[in-house]
Amino acid sequence: MVLGGTMGLHLAVRIAKLMNIELGDIEVKKFPDGETYIRVKSNVEGKNVIYINSLQRNPNDQVIETIYTLETLRDLGAEKVIAIIPYMAYARQDDRFNPGEAISIRILGKLFRSIKVDRIYTIDMHLHRIRDPREVFGEGFRNLTAVKELAKYVKKHYNLENTVVIGPDEESEQWAKIMAEELGVDFGVLEKRRITAEQVTIEAKGVNVKERDVVIVDDIISTGGTIEAAVKALGNLGARNIIVTCAHPLLVGNALPRLLKLNIVDLIGTDTVLSPISKVSVAPVLVEALKKDLKT
Amino acid sequence: MVLGGTMGLHLAVRIAKLMNIELGDIEVKKFPDGETYIRVKSNVEGKNVIYINSLQRNPNDQVIETIYTLETLRDLGAEKVIAIIPYMAYARQDDRFNPGEAISIRILGKLFRSIKVDRIYTIDMHLHRIRDPREVFGEGFRNLTAVKELAKYVKKHYNLENTVVIGPDEESEQWAKIMAEELGVDFGVLEKRRITAEQVTIEAKGVNVKERDVVIVDDIISTGGTIEAAVKALGNLGARNIIVTCAHPLLVGNALPRLLKLNIVDLIGTDTVLSPISKVSVAPVLVEALKKDLKT
Amino acid sequence: MVLGGTMGLHLAVRIAKLMNIELGDIEVKKFPDGETYIRVKSNVEGKNVIYINSLQRNPNDQVIETIYTLETLRDLGAEKVIAIIPYMAYARQDDRFNPGEAISIRILGKLFRSIKVDRIYTIDMHLHRIRDPREVFGEGFRNLTAVKELAKYVKKHYNLENTVVIGPDEESEQWAKIMAEELGVDFGVLEKRRITAEQVTIEAKGVNVKERDVVIVDDIISTGGTIEAAVKALGNLGARNIIVTCAHPLLVGNALPRLLKLNIVDLIGTDTVLSPISKVSVAPVLVEALKKDLKT
Amino acid sequence: MVLGGTMGLHLAVRIAKLMNIELGDIEVKKFPDGETYIRVKSNVEGKNVIYINSLQRNPNDQVIETIYTLETLRDLGAEKVIAIIPYMAYARQDDRFNPGEAISIRILGKLFRSIKVDRIYTIDMHLHRIRDPREVFGEGFRNLTAVKELAKYVKKHYNLENTVVIGPDEESEQWAKIMAEELGVDFGVLEKRRITAEQVTIEAKGVNVKERDVVIVDDIISTGGTIEAAVKALGNLGARNIIVTCAHPLLVGNALPRLLKLNIVDLIGTDTVLSPISKVSVAPVLVEALKKDLKT
Repeated sequence: MVLGGTMGLHLAVRIAKLMNIELGDIEVKKFPDGETYIRVKSNVEGKNVIYINSLQRNPNDQVIETIYTLETLRDLGAEKVIAIIPYMAYARQDDRFNPGEAISIRILGKLFRSIKVDRIYTIDMHLHRIRDPREVFGEGFRNLTAVKELAKYVKKHYNLENTVVIGPDEESEQWAKIMAEELGVDFGVLEKRRITAEQVTIEAKGVNVKERDVVIVDDIISTGGTIEAAVKALGNLGARNIIVTCAHPLLVGNALPRLLKLNIVDLIGTDTVLSPISKVSVAPVLVEALKKDLKT
Repeated sequence: MVLGGTMGLHLAVRIAKLMNIELGDIEVKKFPDGETYIRVKSNVEGKNVIYINSLQRNPNDQVIETIYTLETLRDLGAEKVIAIIPYMAYARQDDRFNPGEAISIRILGKLFRSIKVDRIYTIDMHLHRIRDPREVFGEGFRNLTAVKELAKYVKKHYNLENTVVIGPDEESEQWAKIMAEELGVDFGVLEKRRITAEQVTIEAKGVNVKERDVVIVDDIISTGGTIEAAVKALGNLGARNIIVTCAHPLLVGNALPRLLKLNIVDLIGTDTVLSPISKVSVAPVLVEALKKDLKT
Repeated sequence: MVLGGTMGLHLAVRIAKLMNIELGDIEVKKFPDGETYIRVKSNVEGKNVIYINSLQRNPNDQVIETIYTLETLRDLGAEKVIAIIPYMAYARQDDRFNPGEAISIRILGKLFRSIKVDRIYTIDMHLHRIRDPREVFGEGFRNLTAVKELAKYVKKHYNLENTVVIGPDEESEQWAKIMAEELGVDFGVLEKRRITAEQVTIEAKGVNVKERDVVIVDDIISTGGTIEAAVKALGNLGARNIIVTCAHPLLVGNALPRLLKLNIVDLIGTDTVLSPISKVSVAPVLVEALKKDLKT
Repeated sequence: MVLGGTMGLHLAVRIAKLMNIELGDIEVKKFPDGETYIRVKSNVEGKNVIYINSLQRNPNDQVIETIYTLETLRDLGAEKVIAIIPYMAYARQDDRFNPGEAISIRILGKLFRSIKVDRIYTIDMHLHRIRDPREVFGEGFRNLTAVKELAKYVKKHYNLENTVVIGPDEESEQWAKIMAEELGVDFGVLEKRRITAEQVTIEAKGVNVKERDVVIVDDIISTGGTIEAAVKALGNLGARNIIVTCAHPLLVGNALPRLLKLNIVDLIGTDTVLSPISKVSVAPVLVEALKKDLKT
């Protein structure tokens, strides 16, 4: 059986259809005093249960809803509990950048470990300073990627004859590499280079973008600042048509109009977080992983 | 050192003054994507630290802020960490009233147990179906009462010559008893009695209210419905002047105007939750417990 | 010059590109006490100015932002002020359905009339009980339709050989008619018919849907209830592939997963309100009307 | 009849009791799409109606609720409509401080003028750059003061033998003057004086504060910054016991703990805005004005 939380129900529906399994029912509401009420309405006793929820738009509400639901599923006698967190909140606070800061993702991981789930899947989690996320989230943790699905969409809709893939900064190299392999093209990343104390240039490392079409790929688009800088730099470097892709289109505040102003051909995200650019579903990625998992 | 979260800073200030100890500083903000950022700005290494936060107005935000801060205090090397949660959210969801419901308070307790604090104090927690809260929150849990402070306020401002204390339902008997002892008067509770299938009367059990002044005491005023019914019933039973007191004045929605409409003399709550009727501070109760604790 | 409010900036960007006109800049922020601050940063003196804002997600915030900005544009000396409100809030409260109710749309119209704009455009406004909206909004009011753009999208992506258009209730007949004309197919509406006191059937009026593909069209999808009932009824009547279209995809609460559960082929809305199904832009409709208007 | 909006119901209740008039009933709710629904449940036809609402906590929601309700009262045949807006939002944006800014209070005034009410009362409105508010709000506008009620409270609870009144800046002189007259003591205001380019001192103008008790009075406490600076300056100038009073205790964010940290004796606001320091009701001020008004 597959169940969805407030920010995961759309994916639960899609997975239930793709796997031809039962879609269960959970009642979630807020009391007037702001407390979350959860009731699992389907009978889960003795069943393998998949629960999906993204930790967005109000991440704290979603953390509580997710942890309360997962614990309740176990408490109600579910046999195996698989948690899918397509978008994991707090992943960027993965170190103490300034003295005294909470390393939020480690604490969130601890909360997840305190309730016992058999698997935690997530998608393209931003994990740059944590070597082994299983230390944080437990042995059942798996970080899947949506980049192949993004690549399929790009392949289907665009001619890739003269195309390269670009990650907007060094941290995005991992995703640029996967995208490039899927598309069968070269890739590189953008890099800042300081010329003088005042002057900084951005260069494409590992690939020439001049007079070539570019597919940008990143994990998260939040305020859109990184992408805006990348598109402008690529324009200066002589790139032609630019397509922007990302796994998690958070699109905070004015990010969408900010990106729409740019000279780009398409703007593509997935449905880990529902948005006006969620053109690609991660359901097939999740189904593939689930099938492998449930076989064993 | 004493530190306050968003909903506990006012009490941290009061406790720092009463105990003449340092008031520490925490930076709390929300990122545009809704994530909470926490930074403990004071040096807590090797110190005994008291952290105060009530799990209100947005209880989920406060749960995350509280747990993240407590874990960070420990992580930063605090010697002893004492958590004061003057108002504990989710306490009323302490059983599975309908099949499939989350027993939220047990899960919240589990989250608190997963981070290791030395003490958790709370005030007049609504715990009717949980025999030993230490099973839920760990060995360091203590449930204090604000009712004596409420009683002091009533004593100071009103003539109690012909007064009785009333709990608005059976669950509030524990608080009525403490209040009555402090005031040196009798007490009782209101009880519904079914006359016929359609007819219900409310009676005062254990005490006569006719032509007497009444002090009502309850743990929480949420929507105000219970108090409204109690005041009307007491009026019908011939009570004279009525004073309403409670520990936690949540005052959800229109609760305050609803109560102001009633024929009552005063409406008194504490500052576990800041409200327009928070006339009594729980700081002295907390200081008394802390002093006992820090001595040992 | 074209300017966008918080919920219209994406359309302002699109219109600026399509018309090749300047995109102006407005600063909008909220003070800590909740007041909206507005500053028109572009010089609008003596210019014809187009301002776009949809009265969604927090309609009251958007009403204030819109009215404050429009009045300020006039105050700053703009020559002609054209307001585009792609989604007009409060349109469904267009009558006193119960004694004492506010007829909200008439009051909102009055507020718009009190500030003097030259034109107010909106899209597929739900106006069933108001004969002449110019009485409500003033002489400059125009109600445009996005249904032709929806039709173009359907035509481009689907084979319409054996297709009919259906409005889910009688009020949607106007949109069904336009869609059918554009697609060159027949249309009808669904109608409830009471068989006995308990039994109600839904019938397709004006067209036979058995073994035919169906394009549903409505103005607003709010909770998704109307569409859900329509899709189920059409299934019972023997319809084959069903495509759902609407102008304004509000998609309140769980509307999207609710619709995703249904057996439908596609779900298509416009960008009057940004949503995960906003696949069609109303920018061309607006540009066409603006061009006609600015010529005269 | 007196009616209250969401942020005025507590005052409506108080006024109904003081004037011994009927308290009417309005249903206010939010639809899931964020629109406000209003229904006047009492029969107001042919009656003189008083409606009270403060434009706080979410001022935009309250502006819409207030204007929709007032227009509906008129529409339902109320004879005379008196609007009481104890706290008027947007009063501080009463000029164009930077090019392009909305002069929000003038626009809000225009909206109020577009609906026709017989009177608009407000309390201690911050109007420093608008000579005649009746130009903005119409002929029926009256700006009342709560300072006399604050003075009564101070007089009743404190010994004023060696006391002076201080306004924290020049704009608050008007309130300091009223307070001083009521208390029968001297008054002054604090003033910044620049010593050198870097150095600024704050001086008490018009009165000596050394070794005297001080009552500070201001119209609004928002973030608490002005009061904090004033209390510190008064401390440096040798003041002894300090009492802080204000009409509108907005207490945004951490304002309350910020003030509690200071070395002050009491912190007193009114109930124009409900807050934990709303110890004084403006109901008597309103009743006095209403009685005068209804007589004529």
